[in-house]
Amino acid sequence: MSQSRFDPNFTKHVIETIGPNCTPRDREVLGCLIKHIHDFAREIELTPEEWMLGVKFVNSIGQASTPIRNEGQRISDVIGLESLVDEIAHKMVTEGADPTSSSILGPFWSPNAPFRELGGSIIQDPAPGGKPALMHGKVIDLVTGKGIPNAVVDIWQASSNGKYDFQDPENQSDNNLRGKFRTDENGAYHFYMLKPTAYSLPTDGPAGVLLKLLDRHPMRPAHIHLMITHDDFKPVTTQIFPRDDPYLVSDTVFAVKDDLVIDFLPREGDPNAKLDLTYDVKLAPKSS
Amino acid sequence: MSQSRFDPNFTKHVIETIGPNCTPRDREVLGCLIKHIHDFAREIELTPEEWMLGVKFVNSIGQASTPIRNEGQRISDVIGLESLVDEIAHKMVTEGADPTSSSILGPFWSPNAPFRELGGSIIQDPAPGGKPALMHGKVIDLVTGKGIPNAVVDIWQASSNGKYDFQDPENQSDNNLRGKFRTDENGAYHFYMLKPTAYSLPTDGPAGVLLKLLDRHPMRPAHIHLMITHDDFKPVTTQIFPRDDPYLVSDTVFAVKDDLVIDFLPREGDPNAKLDLTYDVKLAPKSS
Repeated sequence: MSQSRFDPNFTKHVIETIGPNCTPRDREVLGCLIKHIHDFAREIELTPEEWMLGVKFVNSIGQASTPIRNEGQRISDVIGLESLVDEIAHKMVTEGADPTSSSILGPFWSPNAPFRELGGSIIQDPAPGGKPALMHGKVIDLVTGKGIPNAVVDIWQASSNGKYDFQDPENQSDNNLRGKFRTDENGAYHFYMLKPTAYSLPTDGPAGVLLKLLDRHPMRPAHIHLMITHDDFKPVTTQIFPRDDPYLVSDTVFAVKDDLVIDFLPREGDPNAKLDLTYDVKLAPKSS
Repeated sequence: MSQSRFDPNFTKHVIETIGPNCTPRDREVLGCLIKHIHDFAREIELTPEEWMLGVKFVNSIGQASTPIRNEGQRISDVIGLESLVDEIAHKMVTEGADPTSSSILGPFWSPNAPFRELGGSIIQDPAPGGKPALMHGKVIDLVTGKGIPNAVVDIWQASSNGKYDFQDPENQSDNNLRGKFRTDENGAYHFYMLKPTAYSLPTDGPAGVLLKLLDRHPMRPAHIHLMITHDDFKPVTTQIFPRDDPYLVSDTVFAVKDDLVIDFLPREGDPNAKLDLTYDVKLAPKSS
């Protein structure tokens, strides 16, 4: 233990009380967590008052959570933990290969997004100030370089007011700005969506308290969420970020990676969109 | 960072986003906490599924908490954190001296306990199977060895069914088994209470889930809570434990210390109690 001033056997004793029927993985994970929490307390000599503030803060996280608000996940995001867990998982899946980078799922994915026709639009409702764009590209086999037919591209994004459908029932219908598309026989997809808008995390709960303590802004750079799956390939969950966003370097949930930054270009002669985004996704075969 | 397999700059980057208006102590505490949480995730290569279980568990803590149930504190106790924080605080207050050891406050102290007369009883309600005892002793100045008049001895304990008054409104009136006593001109006190009873932490919430995962029992050894205060002395919050309790070596909140183990002796000729407990408390002067 790091501080010999304190009982050197205490943490060992606590970990040794774990019983014989604890699974090996639970013993490893929970033992390591207890060790780090104790080391933290000793290193900064946590006071009883600070500890009690922490207890109240932890209680406040669950109290602010609802079926459509996951404050525990949000706190985890604000301290970079979801992004780190994503890095760990991605490194283990893809070590040595080079598919499209993953990024965090976040709390706004829905399992209920409808399949839509290629060439269709995920924009169901008016989005004042929103800029429609055609997004198109191919889902490619990392090994052969060929397009992957029948891959599923699941996309979700916030509207021009920075809110997702289920945060904003007054302005948005269910599944607005969500949709799943199947790639065609060449592995290609195309659909209409919005150029995304930067937004603030909700700051009326514990995440807001923590961000204020840390003197940090609550902004996420504009982004589009994507989850690309196919039975024969390793799936990827990611986000892509327009290059012109001022929060690109200070994303409050630490999700930006260099190869996920994209450029919207002008689009000519299309009555449905004045912007154009080309984005290809590379997937690694499951057998690799 | 411990695992060079992963981005060696990530944790540093997250900590460096803390803004200039964060207080130095908040920066130290929260930066250290973020570092340890990240190191934990890297060391055991936390998976997304394990992380999400953790997020749900954190949310469940606050959801199980109420104004009279502090599940965050209970989880903290089960992993030994309240006891460790108590050790850190006590070491800082008393380094070099040797007053009565402190132990954790726990979630059942009440600020509303009434002052009672010396020689009175904290037993307001029937306690089936409970064994009344006379507890008596002196509060002593650690430096001079003399009794301290007008010290306040605040005592609280569970009833013979293992429940505190506010957990058990059907059987116990407010402030049953709670009371404050002022020492007399010699620093002495005496009052009637119960020989305490071992009890289980409530296991119908997240603490029960965690204890089951850890394959640990939920039992606390029998104990009496004490908080002793006087304006001129450093206060002590502690617990004392009958020597004959089977859970003494495996207290599920790790609060037992050797010098807090006590013996109940037979008491003769007292119609109010057949047991006798002598317990002196040593306080360090604030000036020392």
